[in-house]
Amino acid sequence: MDTPVSPLAPETIVTPAPVAGVRLATRACGVRYKDRTDVLLALFDPGTTVAGVLTRSKTRSAPVEWCAAGLTQGTARALVVNSGNANAFTGMRGVSSVENIARAAAAVADCAPEAVFVSATGTIGEFLPDARITEPLPEMAAVAREDAWMEAARAIMTTDTFPKTATVRSRIGDVPVTLSGMAKGSGMIAPDMATMLAYVATDAALPAAVLQALLTPAADASFNSITVDGDTSTSDTLLLFATGKAGNPPVTDARDPALRRFKRDLNALLLSLAHQVVKDGEGASRFVAIHVTGAASKRAARRIGLAIGNSPLVKTAIAGADANWGRIVMAVGKAGEKADRDRMAIRIGGIPVCEGGLAVPDYDEAPVAAHMQGREIDIAVDVGIGRGSATVWTCDLTHGYIDINADYRS
Amino acid sequence: MDTPVSPLAPETIVTPAPVAGVRLATRACGVRYKDRTDVLLALFDPGTTVAGVLTRSKTRSAPVEWCAAGLTQGTARALVVNSGNANAFTGMRGVSSVENIARAAAAVADCAPEAVFVSATGTIGEFLPDARITEPLPEMAAVAREDAWMEAARAIMTTDTFPKTATVRSRIGDVPVTLSGMAKGSGMIAPDMATMLAYVATDAALPAAVLQALLTPAADASFNSITVDGDTSTSDTLLLFATGKAGNPPVTDARDPALRRFKRDLNALLLSLAHQVVKDGEGASRFVAIHVTGAASKRAARRIGLAIGNSPLVKTAIAGADANWGRIVMAVGKAGEKADRDRMAIRIGGIPVCEGGLAVPDYDEAPVAAHMQGREIDIAVDVGIGRGSATVWTCDLTHGYIDINADYRS
Repeated sequence: MDTPVSPLAPETIVTPAPVAGVRLATRACGVRYKDRTDVLLALFDPGTTVAGVLTRSKTRSAPVEWCAAGLTQGTARALVVNSGNANAFTGMRGVSSVENIARAAAAVADCAPEAVFVSATGTIGEFLPDARITEPLPEMAAVAREDAWMEAARAIMTTDTFPKTATVRSRIGDVPVTLSGMAKGSGMIAPDMATMLAYVATDAALPAAVLQALLTPAADASFNSITVDGDTSTSDTLLLFATGKAGNPPVTDARDPALRRFKRDLNALLLSLAHQVVKDGEGASRFVAIHVTGAASKRAARRIGLAIGNSPLVKTAIAGADANWGRIVMAVGKAGEKADRDRMAIRIGGIPVCEGGLAVPDYDEAPVAAHMQGREIDIAVDVGIGRGSATVWTCDLTHGYIDINADYRS
Repeated sequence: MDTPVSPLAPETIVTPAPVAGVRLATRACGVRYKDRTDVLLALFDPGTTVAGVLTRSKTRSAPVEWCAAGLTQGTARALVVNSGNANAFTGMRGVSSVENIARAAAAVADCAPEAVFVSATGTIGEFLPDARITEPLPEMAAVAREDAWMEAARAIMTTDTFPKTATVRSRIGDVPVTLSGMAKGSGMIAPDMATMLAYVATDAALPAAVLQALLTPAADASFNSITVDGDTSTSDTLLLFATGKAGNPPVTDARDPALRRFKRDLNALLLSLAHQVVKDGEGASRFVAIHVTGAASKRAARRIGLAIGNSPLVKTAIAGADANWGRIVMAVGKAGEKADRDRMAIRIGGIPVCEGGLAVPDYDEAPVAAHMQGREIDIAVDVGIGRGSATVWTCDLTHGYIDINADYRS
């Protein structure tokens, strides 16, 4: 099936800046797809640290379990990702495939297999033809380049209609550092993890523990705050690699003031990638930001936002350009978090449509209707309980979603 | 919008048997709809007891809160239901509307307002024109009949494409009793409550406490085990009335062996109504039963079943007649309950497609494909942990759902 590029795709796709100490190679290995690249090899210079956030699915795939083990030792020398086959629900044979890939990449990178990270995305429940991945690895390593980020972002795509990339020049203290990243994902998108796959690298010098302390909250505010369909993949993986080439002074604590700007830039980069995933949501025609305030806690606000963002009735109303705030109220109610029905307030496109638990009398429907016709929808809900707030992003639910998903394997 | 009758509708719709002590009247009051009945008045003879299960939404409507208060006293003399306007999110004015309706019906039924139960279903956030409901009540009472159940089931419909009814002859000890019921609901269907509205009456003589002890587990196994879209209404209400006219010997404990058959029949009647709601699921083209075994507990099994039943990816696969068990594994994983990936087993239409966490080698796809083409799909999942089991029912997710819900208010 040939799916047109999402109408929400960015006008220009950014080519990520090279990151010193990271070399990338891609190849068409025929894992499942024909006539396109489907394997990515990334090589990291010695001394590279790593942090990660992985799916909490109870049926997570063998590659995810491999990464979880690797993260405990905190260093990385290689990453191998294939698209087309998720190597999930493949039993002991799936585990062997991951080990084969890790061993082959370790030989190429001259490191221990534990320093190799492995991901797979695509169909569930089919054995991975891992020899097709391992055999070309030496040749791929020989041609790996620092400037191959765009090819890398394309190689990891499945139902994505555009590659997802981001890059930012940051600094730690006075030392310039680079952050570059890529992501893939368009369906099965919901916390945790929403991504399905995202890889970010920086030339900053940061211990793995600091890297992890920066990554976890940034993932919560980005990939764990988006939803396309409430479905959670068995393969979701976010990894952050730091090569140390920038030569910034040592940092041993994530609260170090020297990290202030780096933190902000990392958060912005992850948010950009997460938004791109939503904007490529299967069948999406509108991008929706849901701001929840007045909740009992930040966590409660996020749960309420996700209840709204996952509601098929809210999402179909948005597809129909219908400012149906009654369905938003319904979704708040089902979130299971405290809400004061009679103090609730809702704004759509900045215009109050409900206040004090009632429709705003004679509110001007014209600007609201005009807002609902746009590509970017803004919903703000105050639930009248406390001071917790959160923002969640989603897309609408259209015929396109049904087209793509009622026909995926055929 | 004119929606055709669901292809899953029963071939014949059962006319419920009259229940001694219950009289019904309907009327076209123009609450919102034109040219159709939209108000139901039910009158119960003195001595009628009542039990109920209500939505746990945090934004439940004024009528639901009224019913919750009424249930604490356990007796019922009247029920008023309107369709077209849910009287939800209407603040103090919504509360006044309920009180007006209860007072008017109490005058007609010659009872305290607390013995009047009130429901409303339809659009959220609009004020209810309650005078249109209260003024005709005396005339409606004058023409109320014991044999008007089918008209009653029609008057409470909203987006339903067929009326939902059930009736059963039961017995308590040696005394014959009748159970008759009706329900409405086709979207916004998910626990709790799934219904949106269901009313069952019996001529059995049972104290309110016994009635409630019978109703709660029966609701869990029926209305709280179905899902159309995971959305929970602000108005969901299930009420069970017992007039006592059958003259069975007194029962004071729900565990009384004299109730064995009555329990079974009540459960079957509620399950029939709940299944009809799913079969009228918005846009539904297939009815899906999901049997979960091997879970840590009954509750865990139900949560896993609902995670599968609410998964848009599973539901679109079923719409596309695709036996995509990989998506079932994904949904099991996101349920948050224990599951052993490597002991999981899945049968579709009775045919094992996965065992021991792996695709069954060379299983015969033809009968599975034939089963997926049918109207009734049967999925069995064993998650390999314990002995908890549950069954959940849902429907597929089709273009019809988008058609109906992207266009509801226009």
